[in-house]
Amino acid sequence: MIDIAAVLPTNKPGPLPDGGLRVVALGGIGEVGRNMTVFEHAGRMLVVDCGVLFPEDDAPGVDLILPDFRALESRLDDIDALVLTHGHEDHIGAVPFLLRLRPDLPVVGSRFTLALLAAKCKEHRQNPVLIEVVEGEHRSFGPFELQFLAVNHSIPDALAVAIRTEAGLVLHTGDIKLDQLPLDGRLTDLAGFHRLGDEGVDLFLVDSTNAEVPGFVTPERQIGPVLDGVIGKAKQRVIVACFASHVHRVQQVLDVAATHGRRVTFVGRSMVRNMGIAADLGLLTVPEGLLADLDEAMQLPEDQVVFVSTGSQGEPLSALSRMARGEHRQISIRAGDMVVLASSLIPGNETAVFGVVNGLVRLGAQVVHQGTAKVHVSGHASAGELLYLYNAVRPSNVMPVHGEWRHLRANAELATLTGVPPERVVIAEDGVVVDLIDGAASIVGRVEVGHVYVDGLSVGDVGESTLSDRLVLGEGGFIAIVVAVESATGRAVTPPTVSGRGFSDDPKALDQVVPLVEMELARTEAENITDPHRIAQSVRRVVGRWVAETYRRRPMIVPTVIPV
Amino acid sequence: MIDIAAVLPTNKPGPLPDGGLRVVALGGIGEVGRNMTVFEHAGRMLVVDCGVLFPEDDAPGVDLILPDFRALESRLDDIDALVLTHGHEDHIGAVPFLLRLRPDLPVVGSRFTLALLAAKCKEHRQNPVLIEVVEGEHRSFGPFELQFLAVNHSIPDALAVAIRTEAGLVLHTGDIKLDQLPLDGRLTDLAGFHRLGDEGVDLFLVDSTNAEVPGFVTPERQIGPVLDGVIGKAKQRVIVACFASHVHRVQQVLDVAATHGRRVTFVGRSMVRNMGIAADLGLLTVPEGLLADLDEAMQLPEDQVVFVSTGSQGEPLSALSRMARGEHRQISIRAGDMVVLASSLIPGNETAVFGVVNGLVRLGAQVVHQGTAKVHVSGHASAGELLYLYNAVRPSNVMPVHGEWRHLRANAELATLTGVPPERVVIAEDGVVVDLIDGAASIVGRVEVGHVYVDGLSVGDVGESTLSDRLVLGEGGFIAIVVAVESATGRAVTPPTVSGRGFSDDPKALDQVVPLVEMELARTEAENITDPHRIAQSVRRVVGRWVAETYRRRPMIVPTVIPV
Repeated sequence: MIDIAAVLPTNKPGPLPDGGLRVVALGGIGEVGRNMTVFEHAGRMLVVDCGVLFPEDDAPGVDLILPDFRALESRLDDIDALVLTHGHEDHIGAVPFLLRLRPDLPVVGSRFTLALLAAKCKEHRQNPVLIEVVEGEHRSFGPFELQFLAVNHSIPDALAVAIRTEAGLVLHTGDIKLDQLPLDGRLTDLAGFHRLGDEGVDLFLVDSTNAEVPGFVTPERQIGPVLDGVIGKAKQRVIVACFASHVHRVQQVLDVAATHGRRVTFVGRSMVRNMGIAADLGLLTVPEGLLADLDEAMQLPEDQVVFVSTGSQGEPLSALSRMARGEHRQISIRAGDMVVLASSLIPGNETAVFGVVNGLVRLGAQVVHQGTAKVHVSGHASAGELLYLYNAVRPSNVMPVHGEWRHLRANAELATLTGVPPERVVIAEDGVVVDLIDGAASIVGRVEVGHVYVDGLSVGDVGESTLSDRLVLGEGGFIAIVVAVESATGRAVTPPTVSGRGFSDDPKALDQVVPLVEMELARTEAENITDPHRIAQSVRRVVGRWVAETYRRRPMIVPTVIPV
Repeated sequence: MIDIAAVLPTNKPGPLPDGGLRVVALGGIGEVGRNMTVFEHAGRMLVVDCGVLFPEDDAPGVDLILPDFRALESRLDDIDALVLTHGHEDHIGAVPFLLRLRPDLPVVGSRFTLALLAAKCKEHRQNPVLIEVVEGEHRSFGPFELQFLAVNHSIPDALAVAIRTEAGLVLHTGDIKLDQLPLDGRLTDLAGFHRLGDEGVDLFLVDSTNAEVPGFVTPERQIGPVLDGVIGKAKQRVIVACFASHVHRVQQVLDVAATHGRRVTFVGRSMVRNMGIAADLGLLTVPEGLLADLDEAMQLPEDQVVFVSTGSQGEPLSALSRMARGEHRQISIRAGDMVVLASSLIPGNETAVFGVVNGLVRLGAQVVHQGTAKVHVSGHASAGELLYLYNAVRPSNVMPVHGEWRHLRANAELATLTGVPPERVVIAEDGVVVDLIDGAASIVGRVEVGHVYVDGLSVGDVGESTLSDRLVLGEGGFIAIVVAVESATGRAVTPPTVSGRGFSDDPKALDQVVPLVEMELARTEAENITDPHRIAQSVRRVVGRWVAETYRRRPMIVPTVIPV
């Protein structure tokens, strides 16, 4: 196994040798999200996926994290196509930001994927070049001959992509699992994977998300009977929360609702939009007269309605969170209501999700979640399924993608168990450059890949310095000291103004600061210090020391010295 | 079931009727942590436990959350004793803060519990009155006749307490599980619970933590063979992280280490301290010559040492986190090292814990955690065990404690399944006052219970206003505008000083603010506004509007107007 942590290249790679293929992930390796992999061959480029990452505690106030496009910026015209494997945000969410740089970039994907992308681009007032493909299809873009294969995932119409160049055959799974009883009958094309294996796959990029999980993912369709049991028992309102793109999950809710004589109302903008698209494309079957709009639903008897809602991750502004706080404009939770969280619990969201659960329970609702009933299955292959993939493909080289380090390493272990030589398993991370030359993949260098933050309307102006300030301010608040001094003498012309925010509720907490600062100003004046910057430094020092000794806290100290 | 969310009393209760018993939790109901229950009878009081709660995202910068002592403050001399059920921080952590109010309060507990408390009080330079008790013992404090029962938990020497008064017999489980093969042979005294049931338990307060979890907790001793497999396979260093009070877990690590010819080094202040206490009290058996100090361990061959470390919850300053970042002064992780997280994953800590795991894996370590092997079992009874308790005790009234709403409600459900009438199950929350009168428990009112925050050296001065400022600052930073104006005219005497922190990395981000503020100052001057406060309000308004429109962000706007 080639171990990036031991090698840790920091050097830019040399030029790609003729006939070679270069692979660089600009996101998605070493993290779960913002998947984006760039392939280069014969001077041309192909991009697979362009998603967003949702920020955690270390990026407060940030809305989204984008892949770092810098490595592409000087070569935008060399890109022949952007291929999207499926329509999840972590695969398509950053496309509008890439299209800002290259509006005419051809975007290739399945019908549902492109429909979701089109809706997103519309919000960005973009009109991208869309090229629809289906499983089994072959298409060439520049030197890249692509072949698409059906794969099963937690969203319809997902694809894997095989990339043929003179350098060899590459297979990228996208997000994948091997549900053997998929709700729509569309199996992962294991036979196709096997045929590619027969042909000889030189490099296999494999979804690592669930590589640590032993065994196999339960078939999606086993959730139907569980939902039937839960909804069948309910005597009042039922609210089911799940991901807004999980068409098959929603299909099962619709079917169960119909069985029990309940109508269905979609709640949440993305749920309404996506299910509309899915129904239009024939991916969601909606029985005649089943759907009710919210106003209509509020008039129905309580045992004749199911709300299908967003907010399964505890998002504070979602409909479900507002219900849990008793703040939803129309739906108020009552004792006896039933809420089903038919969704995963994404690590990092536990506090928010359980906050919503507790709020609902406190109001009297019964809440069913994956911890208490089998109302969710993952969309990603577990270890058992990954072994099937490796045995079908028998790749010469493997590169685990889509995962944190623990997932990548577990996936690498699976590859070697099936006989891939350890030295042919390349564990990379974002920015690490892998070249496939003469049938062997190896790490040849590294390009800089940082976090690109979207905060409000702007992209990239919030960076590490802003975030580190936010972390300090968020932990300790600040103490601001303003003094006006005579420019010539450095003498304070007014008493210092001291104020704190996020420091203390006690109005007297900072009473000692004014005399402290006055004493320091007397000292700087006595030493003939007139430079406002130096005076400010002195003030910061004495106040910082005082607050550390008195409170053992570390607020930001913000002195402003105005020469008048 | 009496449903607090439906009743929601806000009124203070009337005086306790003669012969009645009053119960109020000042912490621990509706949350996991800061357990503290106050019992009142015949004008006297008894307190059970006095723990801390560790803050989550909604209380940034806070070190600890204490129970709210206000309801006790006017009646401190009425308290006959503080009983500690066991030595975990969420049961003893706030004792020093209560002792500040009442230094001579008798503190009652088992030997190990009091030893841990004594160590804690020493750090606070307190010398409390300690009264040691053992299981089976009866002791009276004022009108409260106490009886202690052995219970099994994830720390040695835990007790349940029965409280007899004229009002009836109350039984409080403390934290409890029913491991039928405990490592130290000290079973939960189910026979004792049964005998109390025969006598007639009027009110049963029951640990709710795992009430949602079906079945039974795996015996602690089954972890030994798993550790043996993992440590036996290891070819280099082994690091086991677990809670610093989990003596039996550590015992099993010591035993396995000895089997494999490895010596053991404790890492982390609390681990070293607690295991010293446990060994002194004969609760931890340390084979002669097994322990090595850190310097010694660094000289040993890599396959002859096990480090037993704190930091299992991803605490950023812990030894394990520093190893994961490659910043530990002595221990550097290398490919092939084995790290075992023999610990729970407390909700809310996932991001931090997996951050540590990924850091270790990236450096080449193999990491085993409860998601990949059975290296942890809970300390709290699952639903199956709780049913045993209810069937043994057959209580007249039940009050679920120690848990969030979802846990309380699940526990209440279990009580009713065993035959407790739903109307005799009281789901309360912190501050809700429950009276036991003539054998029936009911909610009679509510006292105010808030969050009391410890931040650095001070207690209670950080409150909701400070925290809400920290949340705003942490999300968006601030923009500060300072202007000096002529007192008489309100005319600006210097150009405004504008600075932002936590707002943007772009040095030009706020360039438009100066002209904007100058325009606004010209306007206020023209309108003869001289009041600095009104001028500041105007400045805040225009800058706030500008930043919302330009950036769609909400930093704190902090104007300071200095009259000169």
